[in-house]
Amino acid sequence: MDSLFNRRTIRKYQQREVAPDLLNKLFEAAFRASTCGNMQTYSVIVTRSAEGKERLSPAHFHQPMVTEAPLVLTFCIDLRRFSTWCKLRKADPGYDNLEWFVTGAVDTLLAAQTFCVAAEEQGLGICYLGTTTYNPEQIIEALRLPELVFPLTTITVGWPDEAPEQTDRLPVEGIVHDEYYRDYTPADIDRLYAYKEGLAENRKFVADNGKETLAQVFTDIRYTREAAEAMSEKLWQAMKQQGF
Amino acid sequence: MDSLFNRRTIRKYQQREVAPDLLNKLFEAAFRASTCGNMQTYSVIVTRSAEGKERLSPAHFHQPMVTEAPLVLTFCIDLRRFSTWCKLRKADPGYDNLEWFVTGAVDTLLAAQTFCVAAEEQGLGICYLGTTTYNPEQIIEALRLPELVFPLTTITVGWPDEAPEQTDRLPVEGIVHDEYYRDYTPADIDRLYAYKEGLAENRKFVADNGKETLAQVFTDIRYTREAAEAMSEKLWQAMKQQGF
Repeated sequence: MDSLFNRRTIRKYQQREVAPDLLNKLFEAAFRASTCGNMQTYSVIVTRSAEGKERLSPAHFHQPMVTEAPLVLTFCIDLRRFSTWCKLRKADPGYDNLEWFVTGAVDTLLAAQTFCVAAEEQGLGICYLGTTTYNPEQIIEALRLPELVFPLTTITVGWPDEAPEQTDRLPVEGIVHDEYYRDYTPADIDRLYAYKEGLAENRKFVADNGKETLAQVFTDIRYTREAAEAMSEKLWQAMKQQGF
Repeated sequence: MDSLFNRRTIRKYQQREVAPDLLNKLFEAAFRASTCGNMQTYSVIVTRSAEGKERLSPAHFHQPMVTEAPLVLTFCIDLRRFSTWCKLRKADPGYDNLEWFVTGAVDTLLAAQTFCVAAEEQGLGICYLGTTTYNPEQIIEALRLPELVFPLTTITVGWPDEAPEQTDRLPVEGIVHDEYYRDYTPADIDRLYAYKEGLAENRKFVADNGKETLAQVFTDIRYTREAAEAMSEKLWQAMKQQGF
C-alpha cells in the first residue's frame, strides 16, 4: 500500500512520452475494476495531440496541465455502446435515465481510480480535473460525444517533474461512522478541522484573500453558491442534451 | 499491478473478523485519494452488528452478502460536514445542489475504489452493491442519514471463502477512443461482443431464460426500462429529500 500512502497529485510533467504499451496495460488493469452487471458503461477519450489539448483547454479554465501533460484522459459515462449492442440484438434498452446516469458514473469512476492507482504504482503522476462537470457542453463538443455519452472526469497523466509536499487529510474518525451517522457537533468540527486551520499555508491563504476564516475562502472565492447554482443548471441541461 | 489484474468480486466470506487496525489502515489509504479542493466530501458508515445488517438487508433485496459479510460499508456523499464547518466559521456554504452532488459522488467513489484496491492487495475480498441507488430512501432511514448526506455505493468486505473464475471484459480497443469519440458500427459491436456472446455460461443464461439474445436477458429480465424509470424517480425524490 506504499504507493497509496505516499501519493501526491502531480501537476508538472516531464516532456517524455508515456509508452503506448504501458498505457494499454494500465487500461487493462483499470477495466478489471468492478462494474455493474459486467456492462462496463464507460468510455475513455485519449487526447495526445496539441490541437486536441487546445480544444479542451478552455473547458478546463486553461489550467496548464491540460496542454502540458503528455496525456489527457476524459473518462465518460457511456450507455451508448451497450444500448447499441441491445438494439442490434432485438432488445429494447432502457438506460437513458437518471438511474443509469448514476450507475454509469459509479462504473466510470471505479475504472478511472483504478487507472490512477496503477499509474502511480508505475511512477507516473496524475491530476484529476474537477472542471469536467463545470463545462460539460464544451467537452462534449470538443470530443464529439454523442447521445448517452457524458464526460464525468478528466485525468492528466505523465512522468512527474515536481515533488510537492503531501496535503493534509481529516482524521479517519472524522469520516467513518459506526452503525449510524453521527452528526457533527461544534466541538467535533473544532477538533477535526484544527490541523487544517492551523497550517501556515492556510493561514496565509486566509490573510492573502482578506478573509476572516478559511471556510470563507471556500464559500466566497473558490466555490461560491452562485457558481455552483449556475453550473448545476448547465450540468442538468447537458444531461438532458445527452439523452439522460 | 498483479492484485489489480487477478482480482475477482468475492461474495462468500470466512467467518473471521477483519481486524480493526487493518480496517483503519485501509481507510487511511483510501482517504489519500484525490479529492476536490481537499474537501473530502464523503462519509462511510460501517455496519458490523447483526441488527445493522438486518436493517440494511431489504434495501439490497436480501442479497446474502449483506448479512453474511463481516463488514458492510456504505459510502455516502457528504456535503454536510463541510457545510457545518462553514456555518460555524461565518461562511455561507452553497453545496446543496446538483453540481456538488456530482462532485461529491466523484470524491466518494475515488475513496471507495482506493479502499477496495488496498483491501484486495491485503488478500481481502469485496463486492460492490449497485442496489444502493435503487432504494436510497430505505438506506437513509436505516443509517439515519441527515440532509446533505446521500448513500452512493455499498461494499461488503471479508476474507474470501470462494475462488470464482474471473469474468470477461471487453477488449481495451472497445472502450478507448483516440482524440474523438468513434461511434460503434454494427461490425464493431459484433467484434467487441463476440467473446461475451460465445461464452458457454452466457449461452446457457439465454436458453434458461427462454430468450433469443443475451441482450434481451439484460433488457427484459435483469435491468428493465420499467424498473430503471421507477428507480430514477425514487432516486430524484431521495436527492431532493436529502437537500440536493
